[in-house]
Amino acid sequence: MKTKIALMGYGNISKGIECAVKNAPDMELKYIFTRRNPNELKVNSGATVLNANEAEKYANDIDVMIMCGGSANDLPTATPNFAEKFNVVDSFDTHAKIPEHFNNVDNAAKKSKHVGIIAVGWDPGMFSVQRIIDDSILPCGKTYTFWGKGVSQGHSDAIRRIDGVLDARQYTIPIESAVNKVLSGEQPTFTPREKHLRECFVVASEGADKERIKREIITMPHYFDEYDTTVHFISMEELKQNHSGIPHGGMVIHSGFTSEENRHTVEYKLTLDSNPEFTASVILAYARAAKRLYDEKDFGAKTVFDIPPKYLSAKTDEELRKNLL
Amino acid sequence: MKTKIALMGYGNISKGIECAVKNAPDMELKYIFTRRNPNELKVNSGATVLNANEAEKYANDIDVMIMCGGSANDLPTATPNFAEKFNVVDSFDTHAKIPEHFNNVDNAAKKSKHVGIIAVGWDPGMFSVQRIIDDSILPCGKTYTFWGKGVSQGHSDAIRRIDGVLDARQYTIPIESAVNKVLSGEQPTFTPREKHLRECFVVASEGADKERIKREIITMPHYFDEYDTTVHFISMEELKQNHSGIPHGGMVIHSGFTSEENRHTVEYKLTLDSNPEFTASVILAYARAAKRLYDEKDFGAKTVFDIPPKYLSAKTDEELRKNLL
Repeated sequence: MKTKIALMGYGNISKGIECAVKNAPDMELKYIFTRRNPNELKVNSGATVLNANEAEKYANDIDVMIMCGGSANDLPTATPNFAEKFNVVDSFDTHAKIPEHFNNVDNAAKKSKHVGIIAVGWDPGMFSVQRIIDDSILPCGKTYTFWGKGVSQGHSDAIRRIDGVLDARQYTIPIESAVNKVLSGEQPTFTPREKHLRECFVVASEGADKERIKREIITMPHYFDEYDTTVHFISMEELKQNHSGIPHGGMVIHSGFTSEENRHTVEYKLTLDSNPEFTASVILAYARAAKRLYDEKDFGAKTVFDIPPKYLSAKTDEELRKNLL
Repeated sequence: MKTKIALMGYGNISKGIECAVKNAPDMELKYIFTRRNPNELKVNSGATVLNANEAEKYANDIDVMIMCGGSANDLPTATPNFAEKFNVVDSFDTHAKIPEHFNNVDNAAKKSKHVGIIAVGWDPGMFSVQRIIDDSILPCGKTYTFWGKGVSQGHSDAIRRIDGVLDARQYTIPIESAVNKVLSGEQPTFTPREKHLRECFVVASEGADKERIKREIITMPHYFDEYDTTVHFISMEELKQNHSGIPHGGMVIHSGFTSEENRHTVEYKLTLDSNPEFTASVILAYARAAKRLYDEKDFGAKTVFDIPPKYLSAKTDEELRKNLL
């Protein structure tokens, strides 16, 4: 019996789930719910497309609902709401608001006897798993997270909101000398400017004041003012040809001591051609875990910290011990 | 109330546990059991040293017994035996015999209502956690494990058994071009010779036939015949000065696709000044998990695949979600 998956929302993550399900013989994608007109939505799978309002009617035919909305406005209310009727998995990634979101989902899921796994993806997600293990096995140490090289959606959007900008792509780039300093075991302290560079490719409208646009970018509070930022003005053609992908990645590096003389370095590095497709693959593995926790009646909100690695796998315990241990 | 740890055996791993406990404010090392004369054993901690035969008498004062024997002759019988009276953690690392060892420990631990976590360390252990997660999130991919550069105790011992050899150190070295091939996304198939080199530093006795020793090393079945091996004869002084450490490390690299065009690489790399001290630090974190599983009455044999990441940490769930997610 396959695990029945549904998607709430249809964007880049949802398209990634459509890809990931093809590689998961134990799962099937049954429904895609949308707030747009279902008849006009073209999807890349054989899933039935329905209006979001109808989801509840299909609750008995859905094992796990994957919440594909945004962290800013959608997930904070949508995930707890849907946890009243479904097992849910989301990729909520506003680090500062995770405790509050966890509590909201936990209350709803415990009351309705469902499972809600929040903050799944690569950061939070895979990077968090590395950080907690590193911190546990080498407590006398320090963990560093670097992001990139990759496209930051939030920073690209911020540039697009500037007057005279037609389109933009922002790359976050880790500073190599900072990475090397960490690998050398120094355990340095960094300002934001010392860890990452920001590189922007901007398409300006005809006649726009490029100097003003550049100034507005590099002085933008929080987004850019604390970083060394370079701005390149390019044509729409060049943007489409060279910057249409959504690559990303990053590193978690932990450097720690077990005794005065002995130091150890743990490095975890992701190099991703497609940020949303990789994120979706992680989410689908945790959807498998959500079903299993539900079957065991282990209700409530969970994070990647609560899930044993074997719950992510479709393989039997015997197979895993024999081949992967 | 601190978790009370005891060690069965006193060797390199045990000394590593003595270091690790100093960095774990929630744990204390109470007893060290030995088959040698307890009065003559010098240890690096304040633990009470006792004869191995007496262990059972102290069962009520021990939360977790860490089994510090060897995988070849000791652990296969000792871990199941001690699981009849104690929660146990071992670093059993004979990959091919893990299923059998698991079953033996599982039977004993379930009968006595204890927890036995087996095969803990970095491989099996940390590397296994990476392999299972990689395989689960990117099933359309291939995982490669490289070891080194580091000292292989087993291979060093094999050289020492050759007639005319006073001492020896063998380094396992990953072949850089093989690593780069994997990182490029080719998903190649390797023979053992194509993945690792073996480099040996040998102290021969006066007048020994060095050509014969070298021939015996490089043709030794399983250990060396399937690899490109270099042999250097050095003096005892040089061995002590330049090769007295026990560094090790390695890499788990997974390369996988989520769609036809998008490839992703996951790299995990360990660089360890001291193999036994790092291994001991991992074991101590899993000893924390053993105590927690025991308190939850989740008895039987376990591996790293069964343990949620948060069970390795001394921090509260709230603290972990706030600071490490």
